Amino acid sequence: MKQPSPLSEFDLISRYFANLTASRGDVLLGIGDDAALLEVPPGMALAVSIDTLVAGVHFFADVSPESLGHKSLAVNLSDLAAMGAEPVWATLALTLPEANPSWLEAFVRGFSRLAAIHGVALVGGDTTRGPLSITVQIHGFVPVGQALRRSGARVGDRIYVTGSLGEAALALKRLQAGAGEGLSVELRQRLEMPQPRIEAGLSLRSLANSAIDLSDGLQADLGHILAASGVGARIRLQQLPLCSTVMDWIAKTGEWDQVLAGGDDYELCFTAAADRHDEIQQLSQKLNLAMSHIGEVESMPGLRVIKPDGQPWLATKRGFDHFATPGSGVSDG
Amino acid sequence: MKQPSPLSEFDLISRYFANLTASRGDVLLGIGDDAALLEVPPGMALAVSIDTLVAGVHFFADVSPESLGHKSLAVNLSDLAAMGAEPVWATLALTLPEANPSWLEAFVRGFSRLAAIHGVALVGGDTTRGPLSITVQIHGFVPVGQALRRSGARVGDRIYVTGSLGEAALALKRLQAGAGEGLSVELRQRLEMPQPRIEAGLSLRSLANSAIDLSDGLQADLGHILAASGVGARIRLQQLPLCSTVMDWIAKTGEWDQVLAGGDDYELCFTAAADRHDEIQQLSQKLNLAMSHIGEVESMPGLRVIKPDGQPWLATKRGFDHFATPGSGVSDG
Repeated sequence: MKQPSPLSEFDLISRYFANLTASRGDVLLGIGDDAALLEVPPGMALAVSIDTLVAGVHFFADVSPESLGHKSLAVNLSDLAAMGAEPVWATLALTLPEANPSWLEAFVRGFSRLAAIHGVALVGGDTTRGPLSITVQIHGFVPVGQALRRSGARVGDRIYVTGSLGEAALALKRLQAGAGEGLSVELRQRLEMPQPRIEAGLSLRSLANSAIDLSDGLQADLGHILAASGVGARIRLQQLPLCSTVMDWIAKTGEWDQVLAGGDDYELCFTAAADRHDEIQQLSQKLNLAMSHIGEVESMPGLRVIKPDGQPWLATKRGFDHFATPGSGVSDG
Repeated sequence: MKQPSPLSEFDLISRYFANLTASRGDVLLGIGDDAALLEVPPGMALAVSIDTLVAGVHFFADVSPESLGHKSLAVNLSDLAAMGAEPVWATLALTLPEANPSWLEAFVRGFSRLAAIHGVALVGGDTTRGPLSITVQIHGFVPVGQALRRSGARVGDRIYVTGSLGEAALALKRLQAGAGEGLSVELRQRLEMPQPRIEAGLSLRSLANSAIDLSDGLQADLGHILAASGVGARIRLQQLPLCSTVMDWIAKTGEWDQVLAGGDDYELCFTAAADRHDEIQQLSQKLNLAMSHIGEVESMPGLRVIKPDGQPWLATKRGFDHFATPGSGVSDG
């Protein structure tokens, strides 16, 4: 079952990955043995998350490899942000149809730039031959008992989202429609180069009661918080943070689905007690990152989405779900 | 880029994976949030290793899913065995062409049976749609400073391998030749259901100077020990532990490559000072696992393989390497 090609597996690893990212004192032994050896400081929990990106499912096969390197780490960092954890180490399992040095160099450039920004060391990896696919596991530290969980939302909490929503979904829609050439750099970057909200997550540890990152769409992801917390919620469409491009697009089409059920925002959605509002506004200013109050946690189960006219909005599609039934509507209570 | 099918991603995860494996007190938060939260005891290093198995490269697409579940965890456990680490947690990223409940159930059965044997908890996962591929990251504990490394071999060390070699490679050869029906259960199991040598690895922490697991073939993997330790070695073909099937096959064909360069043995190769030989023999008896003395570490770089007639054996192919150049011979010095 060998399928030979011109570059050896070990060459690949040592040439591109060995000194890729941050160097850290808590890495006792990095790439090059049967396992990496790592040290977790006393009092810290280790937070881990693993995600796979598959060509043709999560990205277009012809996407820039530099963007792909960035995004494959970013989506994992976003999970740590949602836990309030500080990123420390990553492992990378890379399946490639062929050994293409220039593709690999660009991929590593995107991956390592983001890793360096967040002080992440690449500590282990595997390269295999096969259909293009990237699996990254991220590892972070969070003081025991201080992680942000999905299950902490309380009735009366305000619901917030960072940044703005819907741009990645709109970019994807345009690329799928073959309108990639007219796509603005900003919109494309929201899809291909998401910025994980690590700093926000760390600061929110002492402010928020619950958090999640928005990868599958606001409706689905907020739904996870509600289910885990045993509560319901009400959000108002006119309070959702939207850039002018998305606002124009909704004004033209009326398709709120793009914002509520579109994936890939990689913003944080969190809930906090109403009396923390001023502190959250101060944090928002300090980080230069919008934190918009979009609704409230309620005791009645379900998510109620309110239109500008005060009437309930009825969903027509749900969050991104690779194995979902087509056209299965979600009731919003 | 959505490709719907009848079972949702979250259903998949909760239905098959949530209560899959061992439950452990050091898992503060398991599957179901943005990240798992885990605790490493003081004085322990965390050992991590990640491996991907791709259909058509590492296994035949029609392999039994139960065997595949077993093997996808076993190859990672084998890496921990080679470090002398105690396995504790696993994460699983599963890419599937379709949501097939009976396939998944069998896969999980194979995975979880082996996990339970070794006390491993599944703490995180991701399911995506795409060409069949499985990535597992294993996590283990090893007291700081006590891990078995590739770099510890010393001149004068004896070289050992556990178990027997070449059966997996022979099974693969027969399956590739379409002779699967005549394959014995034992031979097929050596390929599809490898037994990671965890107990041996733990006991060898205090006996061995270096270790590696044999995934790419004895020649390539022992070569990694030699390179990392800055030494050379001599091994003798007549001392290699072979079952009667492999011995018969070599007697017929003379193809030692199958044993020296065939992959998938998942035995341990280790080196130890000569004065530890009796203790190693006692351990071998205690574990009911052969530990065969196959050669010695020498100062002259390179690996010298000696035939029964005392002459050097010359390699014709190298270890399993997904990106290797076809027919590139390796000098054995």
